[in-house]
Amino acid sequence: MSLHSGLLTDLYELTMAAGYVQTGFEARATFELIVRNLPARRNYLVAAGLEQALEFLEGVTFGSDEIEFLKKHSAFGGVGREFFEYLAGFRFTGDVWAMPEGTVFFPGEPVLRVTAPIAEAQIVETYLLATINFQAMIASKAARVVTAAQGRPVIEFGTRRAHGMESGVLAARAAFIGGCEGTSNVEAGRRFGISTYGTQAHSWIMAHEDEEEAFRKFLEIFPDHSVLLVDTYDVRAAVEKILSLGRKPRGVRLDSGDLAADSRWVRKRLDEAGWKDVLVFASGDLDEDRIASLLEQGAEIGGFGVGTSLATSNDAPALGVIYKLVELERGGQIHSAAKFSEAKVTYPGRKQVLRCTGADGKYSEDVIALEEEKLAGAEALLVPVMRGGKRLGQAAELNVARERCLENVARLPEGVKSLTGMAGYPVRHSVRLEELMKQVRSRVERVARI
Amino acid sequence: MSLHSGLLTDLYELTMAAGYVQTGFEARATFELIVRNLPARRNYLVAAGLEQALEFLEGVTFGSDEIEFLKKHSAFGGVGREFFEYLAGFRFTGDVWAMPEGTVFFPGEPVLRVTAPIAEAQIVETYLLATINFQAMIASKAARVVTAAQGRPVIEFGTRRAHGMESGVLAARAAFIGGCEGTSNVEAGRRFGISTYGTQAHSWIMAHEDEEEAFRKFLEIFPDHSVLLVDTYDVRAAVEKILSLGRKPRGVRLDSGDLAADSRWVRKRLDEAGWKDVLVFASGDLDEDRIASLLEQGAEIGGFGVGTSLATSNDAPALGVIYKLVELERGGQIHSAAKFSEAKVTYPGRKQVLRCTGADGKYSEDVIALEEEKLAGAEALLVPVMRGGKRLGQAAELNVARERCLENVARLPEGVKSLTGMAGYPVRHSVRLEELMKQVRSRVERVARI
Repeated sequence: MSLHSGLLTDLYELTMAAGYVQTGFEARATFELIVRNLPARRNYLVAAGLEQALEFLEGVTFGSDEIEFLKKHSAFGGVGREFFEYLAGFRFTGDVWAMPEGTVFFPGEPVLRVTAPIAEAQIVETYLLATINFQAMIASKAARVVTAAQGRPVIEFGTRRAHGMESGVLAARAAFIGGCEGTSNVEAGRRFGISTYGTQAHSWIMAHEDEEEAFRKFLEIFPDHSVLLVDTYDVRAAVEKILSLGRKPRGVRLDSGDLAADSRWVRKRLDEAGWKDVLVFASGDLDEDRIASLLEQGAEIGGFGVGTSLATSNDAPALGVIYKLVELERGGQIHSAAKFSEAKVTYPGRKQVLRCTGADGKYSEDVIALEEEKLAGAEALLVPVMRGGKRLGQAAELNVARERCLENVARLPEGVKSLTGMAGYPVRHSVRLEELMKQVRSRVERVARI
Repeated sequence: MSLHSGLLTDLYELTMAAGYVQTGFEARATFELIVRNLPARRNYLVAAGLEQALEFLEGVTFGSDEIEFLKKHSAFGGVGREFFEYLAGFRFTGDVWAMPEGTVFFPGEPVLRVTAPIAEAQIVETYLLATINFQAMIASKAARVVTAAQGRPVIEFGTRRAHGMESGVLAARAAFIGGCEGTSNVEAGRRFGISTYGTQAHSWIMAHEDEEEAFRKFLEIFPDHSVLLVDTYDVRAAVEKILSLGRKPRGVRLDSGDLAADSRWVRKRLDEAGWKDVLVFASGDLDEDRIASLLEQGAEIGGFGVGTSLATSNDAPALGVIYKLVELERGGQIHSAAKFSEAKVTYPGRKQVLRCTGADGKYSEDVIALEEEKLAGAEALLVPVMRGGKRLGQAAELNVARERCLENVARLPEGVKSLTGMAGYPVRHSVRLEELMKQVRSRVERVARI
C-alpha cells in the first residue's frame, strides 16, 4: 500500500475526473474547505491537519497496480485509455492557501483553498476533508480541555479508544496542537517529536503477589519517572505503602473513585510527609466538564490524563466540513460559483479571512472578504503554502502551531473562550463579497429556470 | 514508518515490559478483551477488526531506529541493556482465541483472548484495543443502519468525515462486515475487495454552464453506471431534463430537501416514463432513525448512501473496551486474577462463551463459562486463531464475516434486534465461573488488607 495512493479517495472523484478528462473539459477550479456550523458546545474551532494534507498533495500518484485495479472496475468500463494515461502521469500541480495550524477559526471561513486543474482538485478532495475534519475537530476539543485545566498539564491518553491506531497517532498530534503537554502514544512521540508519558496499569499491580512489591520493583527500575497507580485496591492503603518504602516516586495516579476527595486526602498526606513535589495525577473518563467540576470542588490534582474525549471528540465526533467550488477559470473567463439550496448556502469567489483586534488586544471581529481586499490593522489568516504542487518553505514546527493555538485562544473574547456559554464571535462578509454573491445568485437563478 | 512498529503503543506498556524484563518477572499471562457496557441505543455488538489485529501480532517488531528512540527517551534512563536486547529480538509468540468477525456479542463476553509471556501481552494491548474497539463499534452501527433499510442496499459514504483517511478505509471494511453492500472508498475496494460505488458531486453540475449538459456529458462517458445528482437546483426540473435526454441512467440521487416527498414524486415520474428500473438513491446525513422514518413515510427509495453516522458511529463514537488480566501462570502455578473496584468488576480465568439456541432457531441465552466447560447444543464462540505467534488457517473472506453478521442478527430475539426498544439479551455466568470469582475475591480481599 502506498501512503500517497490516488485510490485514497471516493469513487465519484475518480469518475468525475474521468469525465473531465474524456470530455476535454479544461478548467482551473478553486475549491474552499469550510466548516458549515459549529457543533454543539463549541464557540470556536482550531485549524489542524495541514501538514498531513500537504504531504499527501506532494506525494499523491497512481501506481500501475492501482491503475490496473481501476481498469478492471465496472464503473470505468466505457472509459477510454486517455484517462488511464492521465492517471499514470498524475501529480498534483495546484496552488494552496491555508490557515497555519493552531489558528482559531469559525464556520464559513475557508481554512484551506485549492486552485488546480479541476480533475486534480477533485481527486484530492476526500483526503483533504478527512484529514482537516479530523485533526481540527480533535484540536478544537483539546483547546477546551486545556482551558478547563487552568494551566495544569493535560496528557492525551486516548489511543485505545481512537478510531484505529493511525487515528490514535494523529489524534495525539492534533491534541498537542490544541495545547496538550504530551501523549501516551509512543509512535506519535517518534514521528512528531511530542513528549510521551506513561504511568503503570492495574495489570502491573495485579500480576504481583502484593501491591507494595509491585510499587517497590517499579521504583527500582524507574527511580526518577515512576507515577504509581494507587486505586487498584484501596487508595489510602496504597499511599501508605508507598510512603513506607521511603523512596519518592515522580507521582501517583488516581484512576477511579471520588477524584476530588481522594486527591485532597492524598495531597495532604504527601505534603505532611514532606513529599510536596510528588505529583497527584488523575485519569478516568475525564473531559472538560469533569475537569472543571473537579477543580471547582477543590480537587488537588497537578495533571490530567484524558483519553476517549480527546481521541474521539466524543460529544462532537465529526465536523460539518465541506469542500466547495467557488470559482472556475475556463477559456480565459472567470466564473464565480456558489450554492443556494436551503440551509446550504456557500459564497462564491476566492476569499481571504481578515481578523481584527480591539484596543484591549483581544480579537474583535473577522471579515470574510475577497482575496485581494485589505483592512487596515487586520491580519490576513490565509497564507500561501503550496505553489505548482511544491510546498513553500519548510514544514512548520509543531511547537509553533501549539503556541499559536494557546495565544489565539488567549486572545478570544472571554465569552467565546468560555466552556459553558454559547457566545458567538462576530464574523461578517465584506460588502464586495456580498455584491458578488448577489450577482452569482441572479445568474444561477436564470440558469435554473432554463 | 513500519506498519507493524512496536512503538504503536502507549508508553506505559513499554515501561511495564521493561519492568518485567529487568526484574526477571517470568510469567505467562492471559488477557481478555471485553466491552464493559452497551453504549446508548445498542442492544448488541458485532465483532470486527480481528484480521488487522492478527496482522499486527504476526508482524510486530522493533527496528533499530525505534530502539534508538527509546534509548534516548528520559523514561528509560535507568533501564539496562537487557531490555533493549529483548526488544531487538521481539516477536509476539502468544496464543490467541477470538470470536470470528461478524459474530454478534454482548458486554462482559471476551471477544478476544491472548495468552503470552506477560511483557508481550502488555506491549500489544494498545493496538488490539484501538483496532477492535473501532471496527466493532462501526460494524455494530452498520448492523442497525442495514436493519433499518429493510433489505435495500446501504452504501458507506463516510470517508470524508472519518477520523483520518486510514480510519475511513477501515470504517468501510467494518461497515461491510455489518451488512453494507459497499463503500465509496476506492482503497477499501482495492485492499479488501469490497464493491465500490459513486455518483457525481454538486461541483460537476456547477462546473458546467447548464445542468442538462452536465447530465448529458456524464451519460456519454458512463452509459451504464451514471447515478445523476438531481438536487443542485430543482429536483423536478432536473428529472425532466434527464427524461428529455432520452438516455436512461442507472439511477438518480437525492441529497437534500424532503427526501420522502421528492422520492415519491421522482419514482412516479420515472415509472410513468417507463423507467421502472432506474434507481432512486438517497443520501444526506442519514442514519438508522432517518431511514426508518423515511420508509414509514412511504419514501420510494431503492438504496441509501450513509456517511458520517457509519464512518464515526456518531451517536456512540467509542466503546468501553478493556483488556484485563484474568490469569497468570508463574513457576508452574496458575493464579486467577479479577478486579473488584466499584462498577469495574471483571471475572477471572480463561473463558469461553456458549451460545444457546431455542426451538424457534433464535438465540436464547449466552453463558460465559470457563474455557473447558461444555453445554449441550450450545455453540462455543471463541475459536483458536493463533498459536505460538502463527496464524491458524487462512484469513477469512470478508464476505463470510458479512454473511455471519447478517445471519447472527437475523437469529436475535425480535426485541434485541429492534432499533428503538432496549430489550436485554440474557447473558449469565456459569456456576463454575461464579465459584472461581468467589475464591479470587476472598484471596484479593486478604491481600488488600495486608
